[in-house]
Amino acid sequence: MSTATSTHIQLASRPQGWPTPENFSTTVVEYGDLAPGEVRVRNEFMSVDPYMRGRMNDVRSYVPPFQLGETLTGGAVGRVIESASEAHPVGAVVLHQYGWRDIVQEDGAGFRVVEELPGLPLSLYLGMLGMTGLTAYVGLTDIAPVHEGDTVFISGAAGAVGTAAGQIARLLGAKTVIGSAGSQEKVDLLTSKYGYDAALNYKDSPIRQQLEQAAPGGIDVFFDNVGGDHLEAALNSFNDGGRAALCGAISTYNTQEKVAGPDNMVNMISRGLTMRGFTLGGYTHRAPEFTQKMTAWFSEGKVAYDETVVDGIDHAVDAFLSMMRGGNIGKMVVRLS
Amino acid sequence: MSTATSTHIQLASRPQGWPTPENFSTTVVEYGDLAPGEVRVRNEFMSVDPYMRGRMNDVRSYVPPFQLGETLTGGAVGRVIESASEAHPVGAVVLHQYGWRDIVQEDGAGFRVVEELPGLPLSLYLGMLGMTGLTAYVGLTDIAPVHEGDTVFISGAAGAVGTAAGQIARLLGAKTVIGSAGSQEKVDLLTSKYGYDAALNYKDSPIRQQLEQAAPGGIDVFFDNVGGDHLEAALNSFNDGGRAALCGAISTYNTQEKVAGPDNMVNMISRGLTMRGFTLGGYTHRAPEFTQKMTAWFSEGKVAYDETVVDGIDHAVDAFLSMMRGGNIGKMVVRLS
Repeated sequence: MSTATSTHIQLASRPQGWPTPENFSTTVVEYGDLAPGEVRVRNEFMSVDPYMRGRMNDVRSYVPPFQLGETLTGGAVGRVIESASEAHPVGAVVLHQYGWRDIVQEDGAGFRVVEELPGLPLSLYLGMLGMTGLTAYVGLTDIAPVHEGDTVFISGAAGAVGTAAGQIARLLGAKTVIGSAGSQEKVDLLTSKYGYDAALNYKDSPIRQQLEQAAPGGIDVFFDNVGGDHLEAALNSFNDGGRAALCGAISTYNTQEKVAGPDNMVNMISRGLTMRGFTLGGYTHRAPEFTQKMTAWFSEGKVAYDETVVDGIDHAVDAFLSMMRGGNIGKMVVRLS
Repeated sequence: MSTATSTHIQLASRPQGWPTPENFSTTVVEYGDLAPGEVRVRNEFMSVDPYMRGRMNDVRSYVPPFQLGETLTGGAVGRVIESASEAHPVGAVVLHQYGWRDIVQEDGAGFRVVEELPGLPLSLYLGMLGMTGLTAYVGLTDIAPVHEGDTVFISGAAGAVGTAAGQIARLLGAKTVIGSAGSQEKVDLLTSKYGYDAALNYKDSPIRQQLEQAAPGGIDVFFDNVGGDHLEAALNSFNDGGRAALCGAISTYNTQEKVAGPDNMVNMISRGLTMRGFTLGGYTHRAPEFTQKMTAWFSEGKVAYDETVVDGIDHAVDAFLSMMRGGNIGKMVVRLS
């Protein structure tokens, strides 16, 4: 038994519009000896995700807001370095929600032991094999089901959820997969590596016209990470009976003004469209099915992935801010040890 | 056998914005002797409905647009006055889609024989017992299901579909039913005759604030006939898991400008909301169940109704234009004989 020093990132003030480094503070926490049942974990990777921006506001949501002056939380994967819990032996790899710190010491109940991934980084548990992949899977099965032969449009396609969603859509039977992203590098990657039939750079010209040209036969499913003009574009291109899974609206997270909604909502009626928003909270029961399928797809070499890795707890805030501006390709993670 | 003269209303030009009498023309049609299988029907009532405005535009929709220079169509109920079809004897009451004319002569296949309604006007087949009632029923069962104890908000609640929806919501188990309408007379009627717990006059003050005050515990289901600010109000007041049935958007049908959508679409995600648009076309298979239930509710005295009746084919256009501006309470029909 021993003591340990841990660096924690806290929310110092609620961002107004775009978050800045000043909204965050760093605190050093000293852990004493383990209490019975506790484990001490050295985090290897922590996740930064768009949904965290929402939790920085003090508004009603499924997920409660972050509290000022408390350490932020989020997905992380680490290794047990001391243990007073039989179920969590020293050396075990554990998945948990105590991100935003390099060392964590809490009751073992908060940690789930997972297998090592031979030849693959543990960060995949935060991305393609974890919450990110599950979000894409739930969106394309429960929320806006993909049917054989569908044309599927995915916004923010080069992001963590987007890279998962494009591949899952195809594996679920989509005939045509179209994605949008915000740079030439990203759209090139979508077609070269992720199997997209078409990739649209929304900074080039209005996404509504681009989508119309890329999908002359219309789209059946829309998986939205962006909101705003992307939702409008999808409503414009939807076939009758089209389905939208609203997963994120990163284009609107950092605006302080009210953002006008799509100007073509009336298409919802005339085309019999369905639009469903979701957060993962209500769908964690889908994890076993997802894990089984995704593990199989992975082992069959059917799934590509990218990670954007930032090093060190001292750069966790930078990683988060960069991700909010699209600085990542695939999953953005912070390497902590 | 004999000939007959019929007055038909046609679409002379496509309305730009609000329709005017000049968009319509009247034509006299002479019918000759019946061909085998044909019937001649004297219409008693024809329906004017908001959805007809959409068909006057030349845009893609489930329902094809009306053609210029052809007689308009729509729900009507009449009586067979000559017949060359065994299934349609003279004197039979028939329901059909050959509205916008006083006499119709067509193949019997287009007419469905229905029972007389003892003590009730045949116009109910166009309203509470017909397409209007079915629209409300489908919206509150298939599209945005009402659960026991729900709080339900209905926009355009004093209209044809609205008066049906408020009562059906209650009969399906809603605990609290809130409606909106555009005059003091209408909101009074909603609470006094139709059992609404609260009725909001959207011309008094912003509907968003009014709904927030009327439903401090939030709403679970929204049945929308109006669109625009009403949809925004519902998104503001939705509880987690809320469901919207988008049936009409009469507030936007006659604008030529693009109408900005709700400024709070992001609530779709954070509250896990579902929004579905529909037209009745895909749900006619629900008619038998609806007819059975509604007939029973009617005979048990559980359903109130209003009709706004305009007399004569020469005033059919006036009736339509008045309905578009909210001149009706309950179902607007034109009496033709």
